[in-house]
Amino acid sequence: MSNKPYKGFEPKWLLTPAPEGSYRSIFRWGDPEFFKYPKESLYNLMKETFKMTDDDFKDYTDDIGFDQVDLSEYPSKLAKKHVDALKKIVGDAFVTTEDYPRLAVAYGCTGYDLLRLRHKQIENVPDAVVYPDTTAQVEDIVAYCVKNKIPLYVYGGGSSVTRGMEAVKGGVTLDMRKRFNKVISFNEVDQTITVQAGMSGPKLEETLNNAQSIFGAKRAYTCGHFPQSFEYSSVGGWTVTRGAGQNSSYYGTIADIVLSQKYATPIGRIQTSHYPREATGPNLNQIMMGSEGTFGVLTEVTLKVFRYMPENRKRFSYMFKDWKTAMEAAREMMQCECGFSSVFRLSDPEETHLMLKLYNVDETPLEPILDKLGYRDMERCMFLGFTDGEKGFSRNVAKNIAKIALQHGGFPMTGYVTKSWEKGRFNDPYLRDTLMDFSIITDTLECTVNWSNMEQVHRDVRKVCHALPNTVVTTHMSHCYPQGANLYFIFITKMNDADEFKRYHTTILDAIQKSGAAISHHHGIGKMFAPWLEGYIGEKEYGVFKTLKNYFDPDYMMNPGGTIGLDLKPEEKKFLNERKDYR
Amino acid sequence: MSNKPYKGFEPKWLLTPAPEGSYRSIFRWGDPEFFKYPKESLYNLMKETFKMTDDDFKDYTDDIGFDQVDLSEYPSKLAKKHVDALKKIVGDAFVTTEDYPRLAVAYGCTGYDLLRLRHKQIENVPDAVVYPDTTAQVEDIVAYCVKNKIPLYVYGGGSSVTRGMEAVKGGVTLDMRKRFNKVISFNEVDQTITVQAGMSGPKLEETLNNAQSIFGAKRAYTCGHFPQSFEYSSVGGWTVTRGAGQNSSYYGTIADIVLSQKYATPIGRIQTSHYPREATGPNLNQIMMGSEGTFGVLTEVTLKVFRYMPENRKRFSYMFKDWKTAMEAAREMMQCECGFSSVFRLSDPEETHLMLKLYNVDETPLEPILDKLGYRDMERCMFLGFTDGEKGFSRNVAKNIAKIALQHGGFPMTGYVTKSWEKGRFNDPYLRDTLMDFSIITDTLECTVNWSNMEQVHRDVRKVCHALPNTVVTTHMSHCYPQGANLYFIFITKMNDADEFKRYHTTILDAIQKSGAAISHHHGIGKMFAPWLEGYIGEKEYGVFKTLKNYFDPDYMMNPGGTIGLDLKPEEKKFLNERKDYR
Repeated sequence: MSNKPYKGFEPKWLLTPAPEGSYRSIFRWGDPEFFKYPKESLYNLMKETFKMTDDDFKDYTDDIGFDQVDLSEYPSKLAKKHVDALKKIVGDAFVTTEDYPRLAVAYGCTGYDLLRLRHKQIENVPDAVVYPDTTAQVEDIVAYCVKNKIPLYVYGGGSSVTRGMEAVKGGVTLDMRKRFNKVISFNEVDQTITVQAGMSGPKLEETLNNAQSIFGAKRAYTCGHFPQSFEYSSVGGWTVTRGAGQNSSYYGTIADIVLSQKYATPIGRIQTSHYPREATGPNLNQIMMGSEGTFGVLTEVTLKVFRYMPENRKRFSYMFKDWKTAMEAAREMMQCECGFSSVFRLSDPEETHLMLKLYNVDETPLEPILDKLGYRDMERCMFLGFTDGEKGFSRNVAKNIAKIALQHGGFPMTGYVTKSWEKGRFNDPYLRDTLMDFSIITDTLECTVNWSNMEQVHRDVRKVCHALPNTVVTTHMSHCYPQGANLYFIFITKMNDADEFKRYHTTILDAIQKSGAAISHHHGIGKMFAPWLEGYIGEKEYGVFKTLKNYFDPDYMMNPGGTIGLDLKPEEKKFLNERKDYR
Repeated sequence: MSNKPYKGFEPKWLLTPAPEGSYRSIFRWGDPEFFKYPKESLYNLMKETFKMTDDDFKDYTDDIGFDQVDLSEYPSKLAKKHVDALKKIVGDAFVTTEDYPRLAVAYGCTGYDLLRLRHKQIENVPDAVVYPDTTAQVEDIVAYCVKNKIPLYVYGGGSSVTRGMEAVKGGVTLDMRKRFNKVISFNEVDQTITVQAGMSGPKLEETLNNAQSIFGAKRAYTCGHFPQSFEYSSVGGWTVTRGAGQNSSYYGTIADIVLSQKYATPIGRIQTSHYPREATGPNLNQIMMGSEGTFGVLTEVTLKVFRYMPENRKRFSYMFKDWKTAMEAAREMMQCECGFSSVFRLSDPEETHLMLKLYNVDETPLEPILDKLGYRDMERCMFLGFTDGEKGFSRNVAKNIAKIALQHGGFPMTGYVTKSWEKGRFNDPYLRDTLMDFSIITDTLECTVNWSNMEQVHRDVRKVCHALPNTVVTTHMSHCYPQGANLYFIFITKMNDADEFKRYHTTILDAIQKSGAAISHHHGIGKMFAPWLEGYIGEKEYGVFKTLKNYFDPDYMMNPGGTIGLDLKPEEKKFLNERKDYR
């Protein structure tokens, strides 16, 4: 990352690629050659916020994880006959019990995961990693594992923030990245593509953008699904967790984009139908999405695709005077039926404060102008986004957004802020790694809130966060709908102990639950949010999930150990007697 | 209905209101004072098609059902203690075992139902009818019926075309029309309304249109859901069958419009969550929708509402030269991302032929002009619709539709045709009653088809229909999506025997199934389509429905007797080995 040189002291930012085979190569995000660190004003803000000095940034808090992964204390317990049997299914080269590949698929990306890996707290690793190539192979593996009572996990892109794929019972993890990432078919007439579940975001998008040369298509397409984790996420992960991309206000969440799915389950292949709508009983697509690997392994997904028309994109950004007015403007934009913009992101005052530094607006003449016009720091709210779709549609959305923003006292900030946001949208996780070397940890929690409950959830959750020590919490609203939106909390704190962090994280999560919001808009449940799920859904309602589990996987071999709470003990569950119900 | 006087012989159209308490008052559609009969050119077409003469229209084929309902041969079998217990729950006046109210809720509106009623083929009537007032009462009734093994059915609006609510096991039918039709709450901030399940379409729409005076709202709203059965359909029926309104291309089907639901099930109250999207496991809303009363009784529904802006509506209609070109234009309109029109209806050549007569276009100078320009009868295809939404959005959709229509050789037919369609959109069922007096019966079947399969399904189904004796079959595409659309077949034949009609109906349904279409887009499954469902969904996939049934209603007391196939015997099921799979 290119950055202006610091005027004062510059911390010992770690800008050396992690050695192959090292712990760091696992816990750091993405591209080994890419680094990101804060600019000086942000660095100064952090020192101030967390009461740190330059001295705290002279050396790393801990071991930076450059040593080679060593799991000699955690040897594979999978019997040789099983390893051999799995090799017979996928080929000798595609089953391994070696240390590095086992640890490489053991953890996701929540703060708890990263802290454990940094401290070599190896709690859960699979005994073997298998790299399937075909749907038939996955089906054979599922059948074999169930028959032999071997727990089975799936690693898609590795960006889970819910401990969704953590192999807490050992057994086998399918690593989908290596081979299970192929296009199965492309149908331009129906505008659909069918892919293996391990297909990565960037490979899918590149394929669709180049549909003309690859498939002889008439035009280029886009997948429309761009989560922040895009570069290291998979279609399978998107689907089973009910993910949402940052452009979801226009394209929909993955639950809207998926047309059909194929699963390898203990009771055999499950194939959902592939029609845009039907009236044929309960919707099987919507039953399988959200199962997070507990009903079986997702093998193939048919996705809707969209026309790739970046030339029609209209960028916008506005500053509002306060959160209440900004929320009202956002709601009007969502309810006025002018069509939806693609990215739609409204930051609260605390996030706006940080963003203006992050995007260098604090160094431009805009800052004093905003002040003068009454858009005051720690009150003002930044709103940004862009439109997609056909030219006239896109223009009409932007036009209405402008009109509504102005009616609500929004100050036009030009496309510059949006472009700055776009630059960082997929690489913020790199900054997180750099800061963690000095015990500054960033994590996120998010939830769905309806409009009439928005102000209260925002207030309640922030109140709890600010009562925690050393906490910066920024919030934005994104993934918006006529009935509500996602509230996304980013919290930054100074902390280094995994268990302490887990307790901290739990406190905030508890606050979200009690506020009456939906427990997750798009991160899913995994093992981390599972204790709250039954309390959120309701006991009889949750019984539906158990019933489905018992149908598909009566031996509990599919992603066992707490995912979506199916095999939690009663004492591991939290019930939300204090939960607000605003209806 | 005002009509021009016939020049020639005018049939003895029945234009006398059916007496209160008569059979006819049950089997005829809607408003007792409203009648509709064909204009002369259509009458002549029918005579020609069905090889009938004026003599056939001199008198009715059968008894017209003016006599009083008499179920003395089918007395109520419900023990007095049960009747008394039910009265204790809802009040003495709201439980009845009398003949008329029992027969009034026994049948729906498929041709088989109407023919049976016309011939007094009383096969299935409930033993008692209960008129609940509150959700608590419904919950008590469900608990009582389950405890005492009394089958429980629900009658919402009575417009089922799938025998969905037919009380084949006797027992109790809840008639929701009388009292279970109230607004529970209205939330203008979230743009939602919560209603009891028996709320009728017109009452809901009237309430929303008058939200300002009723709720003190800032503006007027619309429900956005207008099935042809609108005037005699209920929110509960829409929801449990996964219905779609004629404006669904813009507003979505009911599965898109419903935000949350409450059910009284044998295991207790089930309340789904009420957020626009969430990532909290399988989607319970989508599990309950489509259950068609077999998991429990739907009590309350929260629906999204939309701004009522009829002033923004743009009507359009175009004539295309042939079905293939018309389909291509329709697909481009759906895939170009300009937004969707509200009504979007494309008729095939045979339907176009009939429509031009129905809307009197055959009597205007347009007819020879169309011929001259190469839009030939029985080749040309009529396309019509209108837009909704914010002014600029609506205009942009209409503009793009115009552009694409012209690119595909569409000839603008002005808003006249659309307005004619609008006039008849909710009252065509009256015409059906009038014609049935002379053994001319109309019925419909519909299915979802993806674009790449559209031509084949249309061809295959029509081929089978045309091999049947005396059959007119018209087809239109409506409820359209980027990936496909609903194909709606209307067939008209000369037939009077219920069982003969059932066999006839089965033949067409079989053809739809074999063609590879989705078995139903929005009519649901009921008892009529149930034999095909497992074959369509797949055996293991269908097992999910059975599993859910066993969870909610292990004693099979909720809408028992074949609905969605849950308690069908193996020999009653049809399997579709011949089914095409075009993927």
